[in-house]
Amino acid sequence: MTEPDFRERYPHWTMVTLRFSDQDSTGHINNVSFAAYVEAGRVAFGWEHTRPLLSDGQDLFVANVSIAYRRELRYPGSIEIGTGILKLGRSSMTLGHGVFRDGILAADAESVVVLVDRASAKSQPIEGTLRAALGADQLAVR
Amino acid sequence: MTEPDFRERYPHWTMVTLRFSDQDSTGHINNVSFAAYVEAGRVAFGWEHTRPLLSDGQDLFVANVSIAYRRELRYPGSIEIGTGILKLGRSSMTLGHGVFRDGILAADAESVVVLVDRASAKSQPIEGTLRAALGADQLAVR
Amino acid sequence: MTEPDFRERYPHWTMVTLRFSDQDSTGHINNVSFAAYVEAGRVAFGWEHTRPLLSDGQDLFVANVSIAYRRELRYPGSIEIGTGILKLGRSSMTLGHGVFRDGILAADAESVVVLVDRASAKSQPIEGTLRAALGADQLAVR
Amino acid sequence: MTEPDFRERYPHWTMVTLRFSDQDSTGHINNVSFAAYVEAGRVAFGWEHTRPLLSDGQDLFVANVSIAYRRELRYPGSIEIGTGILKLGRSSMTLGHGVFRDGILAADAESVVVLVDRASAKSQPIEGTLRAALGADQLAVR
Repeated sequence: MTEPDFRERYPHWTMVTLRFSDQDSTGHINNVSFAAYVEAGRVAFGWEHTRPLLSDGQDLFVANVSIAYRRELRYPGSIEIGTGILKLGRSSMTLGHGVFRDGILAADAESVVVLVDRASAKSQPIEGTLRAALGADQLAVR
Repeated sequence: MTEPDFRERYPHWTMVTLRFSDQDSTGHINNVSFAAYVEAGRVAFGWEHTRPLLSDGQDLFVANVSIAYRRELRYPGSIEIGTGILKLGRSSMTLGHGVFRDGILAADAESVVVLVDRASAKSQPIEGTLRAALGADQLAVR
Repeated sequence: MTEPDFRERYPHWTMVTLRFSDQDSTGHINNVSFAAYVEAGRVAFGWEHTRPLLSDGQDLFVANVSIAYRRELRYPGSIEIGTGILKLGRSSMTLGHGVFRDGILAADAESVVVLVDRASAKSQPIEGTLRAALGADQLAVR
Repeated sequence: MTEPDFRERYPHWTMVTLRFSDQDSTGHINNVSFAAYVEAGRVAFGWEHTRPLLSDGQDLFVANVSIAYRRELRYPGSIEIGTGILKLGRSSMTLGHGVFRDGILAADAESVVVLVDRASAKSQPIEGTLRAALGADQLAVR
């Protein structure tokens, strides 16, 4: 059931080791732990691709995270989170994430991230080099 | 900014104490911790209203969780999670959740929960007393 | 088995709600979660009794935490963490903690906390009003 | 400051990826997260070296965990936990752990683990092949 082209679907990959404490009383990985895995993908993507392009006083806030649970995960082992851009809006972008174990999808997720002016906490249009970088084909989910 | 009628909006309430380790390097409560708060609401709602009505071999699986972040939360203190039914489908229901601090909305969320036969892991129609209970007005988000 | 005088043993009390995700695959609360409960007690004690007495540039660092597991905890419910001072050293203090569920001891713990100069990260002697406050009988574990 | 022979000190090694949510408001990795790292080492050691040798009905319970914090850890990156046996008692063993980042010690820890009969929850003497395996030089902390 490994999906043969899963690696090409996302431009950015992050590895996370599962923890014993990620489990719950069902004997599987707890749903909340998946939120940490998706965050791992989002933050690693951001530190590589968006943070270096922010001006002083700009920040990215998470507005929404949605996770679709596809298959149970079991401790021990590690997973890989694929991340890329699904949609670039005026002042926000939607990231797409896939949580994979051995090439098999365990969850997919979307994160809506908003560009804000840190002082006013107001959203700002994504412009200039940031928009050019985020709109490039090579950062898109395929 | 306390929303005067927030208490009436949800039929079920759960209290959660914030933890120092719920924070992250932004100095606020981390996004992942909100997933634990929403789970607290969903599980407490389920233990009270749905688990007692399940047949042997039936279980409820979480298919999707979506969280909209509205306001930062800061340690220390406690929050309240309101939970109720937003939509009752053939074999699934959508729960609505509100995470409140002192009556002010910090996040709202939706959880899609599916009734499954544990042996086959296949979804089952919600019927009989379970459907009657879940469809009742007093469990709905208002 | 409730210990009748447990409430008098510790001068400071903190309440923590157990979370579904605190469990692990044993069906009990995971060992790591106890570290969060002990931290809850330590931080709440510090915010009330030590932080207000620190000079600018002083901070308290945790040097050691030791937890003795006495009884399993099970979700759901809440616990209370009792905290007080076991020993006051030259530049450090040892806090004693008891994690109780319905008056029954689930774990006891010790935290060694060191007074440091934040700029140099070097330890400092505990003196003056801070020493007087921390050495007072009413903050001691009995 | 890399300790040149740290790799030889512990017979068993586990890698853990740091998570954004492992941090707290100090901007460092939270103390509680270290407990999860130590658990990662203990569980991985146990699944490899002790669990395969347990009889039906035997289990290993954690009685005590003590962590000495040596250096701050900062996100992102990964750490390695070295684990071995410090002391073999009649019915318990003390594991020694070192948490290393790039060969530099961030924390060391000890876990006391007790062999119990699961039905009675009473401790049992460590005997036979289990004692021989755990007492072997190659599982000791050096």
